Amino acid sequence: MQTANSVGLVTPRIERFEEPFVLASGDVLPGYELIVETYGTLNNAGNNAVLICHALSGNHHAAGRHSAEDRKPGWWDNLIGPGKPIDTNRFFVVSLNNLGGCDGSTGPNNINPASGSQWGPDFPEVVVEDWVNSQRALANRLGITRWAVVIGGSLGGMQALHWAVHYPDEVANCAVLAAAPRLTAQNIAFNEIARHAITSDPEWFDGYYGRQKKAPVRGLALARMVGHLTYMSAEGMTDKFGRERRHVDENHDDQVFEVESYLRHQGAQFSTRFDANTYLLMTRALDNFDIAADTDGDLCSALAPIRARMLIVSFSSDWRFSPSRSREMVDALINTGKTVSYAEIETDGGHDAFLLNDTQYLELMRAWLNRVQLDAL
Amino acid sequence: MQTANSVGLVTPRIERFEEPFVLASGDVLPGYELIVETYGTLNNAGNNAVLICHALSGNHHAAGRHSAEDRKPGWWDNLIGPGKPIDTNRFFVVSLNNLGGCDGSTGPNNINPASGSQWGPDFPEVVVEDWVNSQRALANRLGITRWAVVIGGSLGGMQALHWAVHYPDEVANCAVLAAAPRLTAQNIAFNEIARHAITSDPEWFDGYYGRQKKAPVRGLALARMVGHLTYMSAEGMTDKFGRERRHVDENHDDQVFEVESYLRHQGAQFSTRFDANTYLLMTRALDNFDIAADTDGDLCSALAPIRARMLIVSFSSDWRFSPSRSREMVDALINTGKTVSYAEIETDGGHDAFLLNDTQYLELMRAWLNRVQLDAL
Repeated sequence: MQTANSVGLVTPRIERFEEPFVLASGDVLPGYELIVETYGTLNNAGNNAVLICHALSGNHHAAGRHSAEDRKPGWWDNLIGPGKPIDTNRFFVVSLNNLGGCDGSTGPNNINPASGSQWGPDFPEVVVEDWVNSQRALANRLGITRWAVVIGGSLGGMQALHWAVHYPDEVANCAVLAAAPRLTAQNIAFNEIARHAITSDPEWFDGYYGRQKKAPVRGLALARMVGHLTYMSAEGMTDKFGRERRHVDENHDDQVFEVESYLRHQGAQFSTRFDANTYLLMTRALDNFDIAADTDGDLCSALAPIRARMLIVSFSSDWRFSPSRSREMVDALINTGKTVSYAEIETDGGHDAFLLNDTQYLELMRAWLNRVQLDAL
Repeated sequence: MQTANSVGLVTPRIERFEEPFVLASGDVLPGYELIVETYGTLNNAGNNAVLICHALSGNHHAAGRHSAEDRKPGWWDNLIGPGKPIDTNRFFVVSLNNLGGCDGSTGPNNINPASGSQWGPDFPEVVVEDWVNSQRALANRLGITRWAVVIGGSLGGMQALHWAVHYPDEVANCAVLAAAPRLTAQNIAFNEIARHAITSDPEWFDGYYGRQKKAPVRGLALARMVGHLTYMSAEGMTDKFGRERRHVDENHDDQVFEVESYLRHQGAQFSTRFDANTYLLMTRALDNFDIAADTDGDLCSALAPIRARMLIVSFSSDWRFSPSRSREMVDALINTGKTVSYAEIETDGGHDAFLLNDTQYLELMRAWLNRVQLDAL
């Protein structure tokens, strides 16, 4: 098992990029800021850096605490820290909030310098490629010419995969967890329902809710409920909630099932911390991702440029991005002669399992990361 | 394959029951109406009647057309008609809209005689047991003392199962399609999201939207989108939609995925024809159903009273009520020495497959129904 060591108190910082940034859409962002946390120390050779790519609702705060009073540590604290699988005694870990986010990097909540008012729904479309390019600018700023490891789960895994394919000389090792080479119609449909929940909220105001000092909190809560439900497995939910009921104080129900109460709470909580325009932007980036878009859907050709040592991990009960989607990537990597390890973790944690404490998973990550050779970079 | 014969033009009629009706909750409904369609002729022995139990959003209009101009026939027209599996040359088919519905039977849209205003959210809670009891009153009215067949899919299958368990002498044959002995936490969670979509719509007005001449159409559309998505299989959606995009005229999107456009259309259409209070009532009946509630969850004990010849059918790609849920019932029926046939239909039609044209499915139904012995009743 992991040791309980933490990176301790951490402070995010802003990295400002003044140069205009050309997005994949052709739109140009007139400079931008990324909010960043780092853990550990970059070595003199500059070859021990690990890039953490976050998923849909993640951010830069991956490990440690911002203050001693923080109830919870960063979202990947079980993986990142001294003596943990992503060992900060050995690695220099870089974690950022992606462009278009709502946790400190430039996004829809910021002021559009051209108009002087909030971007809101006019924030340009951002895709995985743009995130990778902005992460690359950050690497350059930090003096990192080649990542020891690029790693991410779900949408984060898609960024890691894009890195390995498009910048093969800049990624030594790449871990793609709970991801897929592209979304299925069912995946897209769940995202569409989430978006529809937001945009059909009367306080959506075509995305200009900020100007009205409002927010589509009900729609966003619903969107999160749908999302959260799909991140859990049916088995996991049965174990956690079963058909238990609990009393609530709400106006129209005397008693609800445990699972109802849980989902309502999750949705309500999320809707107060996350921005609706960012949620739309992130889900669209997910829908639009297709690593084989440039190779007519041929995954072998798409992955051919990869030079990184690859790790693909899937989770048995993940029905959002099922193990078969990971095996598509593994097959293509094997067929093109890449160095690839694959594990399907037996768990009832569902899609969210990449965030959870599962001994087999953490030990697998530790073993694979221990074999990252820093001298060989 | 089925012949194309139709029951032709059909006319629903209202059956009014004046006696107060005691519901499982203890609430009393002061009389009620059921809207009913029948196809075929009740024979002199009164032993050729088939009861059709509808699912969440179904109604009494199961076969034929109400007018020559009707674009679509009743919802189970592929199964019901002269020469079809439920052969109206042989059977007298009874189909009704359940109590609490919004298609003509007494429900939330009707006037509460006690108050003189619309029931709305004050319509009493209705459970599967209540539906079966009201269907029993209807049978009595029609002179049917024992059903040749009680049949239903999904929530309709649960009614059929309740019939077979609680009125074993009144059901000769019972077909339970795409159903489960009770819902899982995941099932309940999907229903809860649907309900939450409705009740968080500002035009919900605590269920009294009728008084405001409004309706929570956006919430109801969303609820249906969630539901509809879970009735399809991932494979079926991939085949039907893939990642194709289409242009739309809407304000904020130039292009959407086919699947988005489809779901929006389904949701919008449903929200104009269905009542939100009924949707809540129906999903709650689904959540509350548990055939083994009285036997401490012991399914064998629960199903022990059954005397009917049973058919259980599941569909390989149904992830809402997966084949394993059907097998729970089959195992319990075998363990208690019942006459049971079981088939898992290989299809990518998902949960909705019980409504679809699948040759293997229709032939199975025909074969099982052909062996219904009317003389032996």
